Amino acid sequence: MKLKFTKMHGAGNDFVVFNGCDQDINLTTAQFRFIADRRFGIGADQILIVEKTEKAGIDFRYRIFNADGGEVEQCGNGARAFARYVTDFKMTSHNPIRVETKAGIIELFIENNGTVTVNMGKPEFAHARIPFDANGLKGTPTGDDTVWPLFLDNESVSQEIDISVVSMGNPHAVQVVRNIDEAPVASQGPLIENHKRFPNRVNAGFMEIENRHSIRLRVFERGAGETLACGTGACAAAVAGIRRGLLDSPVTVKARGGILEIAWNGYGHDVMMTGPAVIVFNGEIDL
Amino acid sequence: MKLKFTKMHGAGNDFVVFNGCDQDINLTTAQFRFIADRRFGIGADQILIVEKTEKAGIDFRYRIFNADGGEVEQCGNGARAFARYVTDFKMTSHNPIRVETKAGIIELFIENNGTVTVNMGKPEFAHARIPFDANGLKGTPTGDDTVWPLFLDNESVSQEIDISVVSMGNPHAVQVVRNIDEAPVASQGPLIENHKRFPNRVNAGFMEIENRHSIRLRVFERGAGETLACGTGACAAAVAGIRRGLLDSPVTVKARGGILEIAWNGYGHDVMMTGPAVIVFNGEIDL
Repeated sequence: MKLKFTKMHGAGNDFVVFNGCDQDINLTTAQFRFIADRRFGIGADQILIVEKTEKAGIDFRYRIFNADGGEVEQCGNGARAFARYVTDFKMTSHNPIRVETKAGIIELFIENNGTVTVNMGKPEFAHARIPFDANGLKGTPTGDDTVWPLFLDNESVSQEIDISVVSMGNPHAVQVVRNIDEAPVASQGPLIENHKRFPNRVNAGFMEIENRHSIRLRVFERGAGETLACGTGACAAAVAGIRRGLLDSPVTVKARGGILEIAWNGYGHDVMMTGPAVIVFNGEIDL
Repeated sequence: MKLKFTKMHGAGNDFVVFNGCDQDINLTTAQFRFIADRRFGIGADQILIVEKTEKAGIDFRYRIFNADGGEVEQCGNGARAFARYVTDFKMTSHNPIRVETKAGIIELFIENNGTVTVNMGKPEFAHARIPFDANGLKGTPTGDDTVWPLFLDNESVSQEIDISVVSMGNPHAVQVVRNIDEAPVASQGPLIENHKRFPNRVNAGFMEIENRHSIRLRVFERGAGETLACGTGACAAAVAGIRRGLLDSPVTVKARGGILEIAWNGYGHDVMMTGPAVIVFNGEIDL
């Protein structure tokens, strides 16, 4: 079976995109794994399939699969790649683009400079819904937030760090560091990720504050290690900084893979993420 | 500039191949780096450019570049990829194929089963030409070879291992292990690579002998860490095993990325390597 595809990335998070509108895409788990393999296949973090939908007022449907073939609910970087894909290939002239995803219908806005804005939903702070167990901990109130101490301990690390906790659909523990290049991402990351106070594990964010509208960010992603750009991690860091009174919206988030802009007008409002997505090349593979 | 390319791999060593016969390929260091980048570009260990040659009796010329843009002298896996490329795209019907490389003219044989045989040249055993400093060491004669003790020492490793030393154009230190899956590649690899008895550093090979015609191999490559398949490492391991009286030619070498067959008829003879190379997909990129 010959399939046409497009390789894209959004701030270094990379995708193989298949157009399921004009070709039939039915891939097995083994095929997803092969496609995602960076030496034996095409290579990608995730695979995105664009499909037609019959629903009134909705332009497309898309599905995102991880390298292991499992389907993902939502992905901010993938949403931007989708929007650029259907725009660059002139499959729609709509703006915003309304699209059906596994997590529901979302609207994507193409900005004048070509970046794409995605509504990332409302941040969640209730400990039970992150989930985070603060039982017995004494937090420090800061701005609208409370910062919690987290004790890290293994044979090479033994220290207490201060974290903000927030869920963007997935849990995040964010800390402020003085210098992002020297942040102990590799040593602390696994300890935070698997800390017993996070029953579902957690993504560990490290942010250096440049000024009230700009941070530098690194994220140790749950199950993946340090990645180039984590969309929900950027949202979590900006939201945490705003709640602590350290940042004002919008916040420019400089990740290793690219720059994202996060806007959030406070409690009860959705988080808006704006960032790039680009086509790298087009190809055809015989599966 | 739009360029067509083909992604290939030979036993997991992967290449972006450009046809320089019908399109002009003049790439900058920055472009090589971009092409090799697995998230922002196409992704490959190396870039291979196929060109015409004016020399009589020679079919093609090819050049191989590393991900950093530096040109490579020779590469057994790349030679196989080249041979399959010009055969699959019907650019020649010759067999063997004679091709000019930076290391001289080589002949490539397409076998009936589609694998490719490459002449890898003569192994070099003279210590000065590996280079290896055995000064003050007491070796153990085994078959036609001498096995040398190498003392490894850092904060977590302190032990003596037995190695054979051989150059296949690049230096190799090969040791026999009982179980390849449990071989201490990650812990010993860097210590062997940078051992002071190898002034130009060394590739560290670990082989498990299955029978007199079959080994399982892992290689910690100089400057690259453990790789899926190292062509010269497979040759070095087979040659070392044959000289020590442990193996007979031909030797099937099972690496993590695929299977290679190594034939060597002893001192003064060239080493012949046979293995697969496959096209994964075709693409077009705008550079």
